[in-house]
Order: sequence, then C-alpha cells, then structure tokens
Amino acid sequence: MSDSWFYRAAAAIDEAAVAMAQRRQDALTKPAGSLGRLEDLAVELAGLQRRGRPQIEHVHIVVFAADHGVAAEGVSAFPQAVTAEMVRNFARGGAAINVLARTLGAVLEVVDVGTVIELEKLPGVVSQRVGKGSVNFCKKPAMTDEQLQLALSAGREAVERACVANMDLFIGGEMGIANTTSATAVSSAALQIDPALVAGAGTGLDAAGIGHKSAVVRRALALHRDALKNPLDILRCLGGFEIAALTGAYIAAAQAGVPILVDGFISTTAALMAVQINPAVRPWLLFSHQSAERGHGRLLAELEAHPLLGLGMCLGEGSGAAIAVPLLQMACRLHDEMATFAEAEVSHSGV
Amino acid sequence: MSDSWFYRAAAAIDEAAVAMAQRRQDALTKPAGSLGRLEDLAVELAGLQRRGRPQIEHVHIVVFAADHGVAAEGVSAFPQAVTAEMVRNFARGGAAINVLARTLGAVLEVVDVGTVIELEKLPGVVSQRVGKGSVNFCKKPAMTDEQLQLALSAGREAVERACVANMDLFIGGEMGIANTTSATAVSSAALQIDPALVAGAGTGLDAAGIGHKSAVVRRALALHRDALKNPLDILRCLGGFEIAALTGAYIAAAQAGVPILVDGFISTTAALMAVQINPAVRPWLLFSHQSAERGHGRLLAELEAHPLLGLGMCLGEGSGAAIAVPLLQMACRLHDEMATFAEAEVSHSGV
Repeated sequence: MSDSWFYRAAAAIDEAAVAMAQRRQDALTKPAGSLGRLEDLAVELAGLQRRGRPQIEHVHIVVFAADHGVAAEGVSAFPQAVTAEMVRNFARGGAAINVLARTLGAVLEVVDVGTVIELEKLPGVVSQRVGKGSVNFCKKPAMTDEQLQLALSAGREAVERACVANMDLFIGGEMGIANTTSATAVSSAALQIDPALVAGAGTGLDAAGIGHKSAVVRRALALHRDALKNPLDILRCLGGFEIAALTGAYIAAAQAGVPILVDGFISTTAALMAVQINPAVRPWLLFSHQSAERGHGRLLAELEAHPLLGLGMCLGEGSGAAIAVPLLQMACRLHDEMATFAEAEVSHSGV
Repeated sequence: MSDSWFYRAAAAIDEAAVAMAQRRQDALTKPAGSLGRLEDLAVELAGLQRRGRPQIEHVHIVVFAADHGVAAEGVSAFPQAVTAEMVRNFARGGAAINVLARTLGAVLEVVDVGTVIELEKLPGVVSQRVGKGSVNFCKKPAMTDEQLQLALSAGREAVERACVANMDLFIGGEMGIANTTSATAVSSAALQIDPALVAGAGTGLDAAGIGHKSAVVRRALALHRDALKNPLDILRCLGGFEIAALTGAYIAAAQAGVPILVDGFISTTAALMAVQINPAVRPWLLFSHQSAERGHGRLLAELEAHPLLGLGMCLGEGSGAAIAVPLLQMACRLHDEMATFAEAEVSHSGV
C-alpha cells in the first residue's frame, strides 16, 4: 500500500511568491495589517497558486452523495430516501449549493458514489457508484477495502476532471442521510474521544436523539476496536463512500497544487483523514466556517484551523465553503487592484 | 430642537413580510435552521425591505472625509495630510473601498465634509465642507452647533441623493486622520467609561501611543464634562464632521426605510449616536464585522449587535461592511431561488 497514489507528496508552496505578496501588502494604501485576515489570505493564496497576485475566478464544487447503512439505527431526522431525492434536486438546480454555485459562477458537479435508490441518468450528476450505500457499521465494516479504494479514487478522479479546466479553488461537499453519524464515528476514532463529545444534532435531532446517536457510535467503536489502527481502516470500518471520496479529493487537489476550501463537520472529518493519511495535504486546506454541529470545533482544533466564518450553518453540500468564497475573492482583488503609497502619492511615514 | 428632522420616526418594519419570509424559509429544501444566520438575515431584510423576497442588488456606499484638530496632539501614526491624499486616492480608484465597490457593483460617493487641505474638484467627490477640519477638542468644542447641524445634514443629503436611485442597502464609511481618537472620546462619553477601555491602535499606535491617546481623551472629557449631557452635545464637543455626517446619514436612511450595514469602530460610534438621538433607528442597523479596534466590542454590546464577521479588520472607509455584502446577497439569493420540499418532491417529515 505504501506506493499507493494517496501517499505521494503534495505540491510545494512557492515561498518566493509568498515574499512578493507580503511586500506588496505592506506597500498598499492602508495601515499595515488593517485588512486583517484578508491580508493573510492573499499572501497564503500567493504561495499556493505560485503567483504574486493570486486570484479566485474559477471555483469548482464537487458534491459527493452516498447512503449509509447506519441509517437503519434511526439516527437521522430524515428518511433515507432523501439522499436520492436531494440528488435529483441538485440536478434540477433547486438546492442551496446550486444557488450558491450560480451566484459565484462556479462549476458544480455532483458525484453519486452510492445511493440506496438507484438514480436515473441526471444532468450534472456523474455516476461512480461504489455500492448501494455503505453497510450498517454497527454490524460489519461499512465497506470493503476494494470499495474504500474505489471511493478514494472517485474523489481523485473528480479533481482530475476539474483540473482539465482551469481551477483556482476546489470545494468538496457531501449529501447523505446519516452521514453526521458516520462522521461522528470517524472523528471519535481518529481523535480517540468519546462520541458524546462529537455527536451533534445533524439535520435536527433533539437531545434524546443525540444521545441515541452517541450510543450507536459507541457500539460501533467497540465492535471495530481492534481494527481502528490507522486512518484507512477507520474510513473502511466507519466511513461512508462520500466521506472517503472527499478524503481522496482533498489529497488529489493538494497533489495537483490546487487550494482547497473546506466546508463543515463532515468535510472537516474527511480533511482530518486526508491529513492523517498524508500530512503534506495540510497547507493546502483553507477552512471556511465553523459549523453549528457539535464536533466541528474539536476537529478544527486538531487541525489547528481558524475558519473565516461562524454563521451557525450546518447544511453541508459544500454550502459553508461557497459562502466564504467572496472573502477569498475580495482578498485577491484588494491585493491586486489597490494602489501603493508611491502610486497614490499618499504619505506613509509616521508623524 | 424637538422638531428637528433627526427626531422624526424611522420607517416601520413590515411584519407581514417577516412572517411570509419565515414561512418560506421553513419550506425550503434544507433542515430547518441549517443556513444559520443567513436565514435570519433573509427574514430580517424581508421586514426592512417590505417584501417577502428581499434582495441586495443596489448598494450605495458613501465615504465621509474630514480632518480633526485633535491630530495636533500627536495621536495618529500618519500625518494629517493623508486625509486629503486619501480623498484623491478615492477619486482615482486606488483605495480599498474603491476595489470593493467595483467588485460589488456598488455606487461609491465620497463627501468632503472638511479636510484641512482644500481639495481641487475631484471626480466622484462631493464637496460639502463644514469647515477646515474640526477644532482640537482638548482646547475647545470640536465644532459649533451650526457646524454640527450642517454635518448631520450632509449625511442626510447623501442618503437623499442615494434614494433618488434605487437603493437596497446603505453603507457609510469614513476617512480622517485622528478620527479613532474622536470616536474614542465620543464613545467614552456616551458609554460613560474611561477612555483606556476604548482607545485602540488606530492606524498603528504602539502601547505608549495608545496610552497617550487615552490621556488626551481623558483631558478632553474633563474639559467638556459639564456639556456632555446628550448625544448632540457629545458630537459637538468631541466629534468630527464625518462622524456627525455618518450619524445623520444613518438616521436619514432609517427614516427613508433603507437597511443600513454598519462598518467598524468609528461607524459604530456614529451608529450609537444615531440610536441615542433617535432610538427608532436601531432596527435598521445591520452590523457587518467586529473590528480589531479595542473599543468596538463595547459599542457592539451596548447596541446588542452581533456582527457577521470577525476578520480582524480595522481600515475604515466602509470596507468591513463592503466585505459582508456578499453574505447578505447570498442570504437573499438562497431565500429566493431554493426549491421548496413540495416543488422538489423531497421527503420532509422525520423517520
């Protein structure tokens, strides 16, 4: 396995571009540091995009959809049919991520990596099914090793398709009833903490529902205890196809040298898996928002991530990342278009 | 004075539009509440714009520029000439707010309410000079009552000009060397707290500089103690022309029924003055970001405001508000364009 594609190095950061961008920031007509994190973003993106003047014009959003066997444990407020129904909603342009992609002029692709209901051919939906949903991980491993490899590759291939076009930024999203339960299980195993510290309301559980979800995950962690030795086995035993696909996509984007804007709890679970599999992925991850989902803060802390927004969102689909895109775009536009003190003949030195 | 224009009632909120928008939010294809504050924004804007489907397409930004006599006390890291130099930079399109206005497709107007250096005629700059900068308020009141009335009216007239066009959202900004010192004085007087709890780094003071700034403000508060009985006298004694103009603009926008997106520390000082003069202004104020400037948090708390962003910005010019505009726009687009559960045939009820 050590020669697998996902262990290959990520692209290098261009330190010369970082230095060039920092010098430019210091010369623009504003008090030093007064654009706050927008200055850091412009400098960071310069290093990632290997150019002194980064830009975010071509955003690609890929939403991976799959079902979860663990839904049988009654862990979601919505019935399992909603996964396929929402894929149809994506195809018709009616979901939140469709609206946001249109607003941003971003490319949106949906990848079916395994819904329980087999979908008809739909516009904008790529069928790359790994199975008819994952297995209930309270009974058996969620997927076979072959399925895990296929799911990781589905993510990589989505990135490869996006790279054929001109991609400045990659956003991954997900849809799958019960996938906060899978993400809770994966996170708890990876962070080695009790699921009660991670489990949240998902699509709308009450306190009793969250308690039940924690108990379900605790049971799964006990069942697979001896197998949960590394991130790949954690994904295989407790993951979902879309979480594994996101993991593969993040690794592939970092290898391709494309900055990644991470969404919420489930996406950050995949990001943690990607970093645990291949630590060189970490510098390529930008974090968009802190979700309302309970476990997200712990995942962000583990990744030493400081997200840009905290709007109490918890929708998934990549929506929180999409919401943050204008911040990156404006950081780049300010960096590129503002006049320098010299150009504007504005006095720079102090009194 | 009780018949003055600024005491007139603000426009009413449309509660029917609020209820209609809330019903629509609950019907859209997402778990209830999962868009977090974006849902609240859409509903709030519905009430303010008096339509079930609010929109933010026509944004007007007005930057008021003026000089401050208190600059003579050595309270700024930049020389006073920078105020006029930055107005020229605005006119040439090189400042941060120019870049942001272009990015947003927003109208940007600059109003010279009184720089020390008298400016030549400049494109996009309205000359409505109240004086050659305010007086050093460590020696005398910052302005006469007549100047205060003129400055407040300059703000109102800017809003009236913007209302002639179709305005969905008003943003006020400011530029004026030493104006964080004036805002610190106004805020300290209004909140009745020691200036050391409010004074911040402004354009880049070190700890000693901030201590000096606090001492300067403390001296002014002592000098004017007996006069600081109401917000108008606080503005007259300690304000600046641009802070008073912003105050007038906020009141006028609320009276005209136009939602206001408030920027950082100085703008929020003006917002507090507007609310203290006319409490009916408060519902019309949306708060964009928490600035890095020390006193901003206290002002926001006093106004029970929960800003959308916390990016460590402290530039002024209305820049932080401009950065937050896409959040409002996306909230409206999601509200308007997402499919309902019924339209998308997505199952809604729980398991």
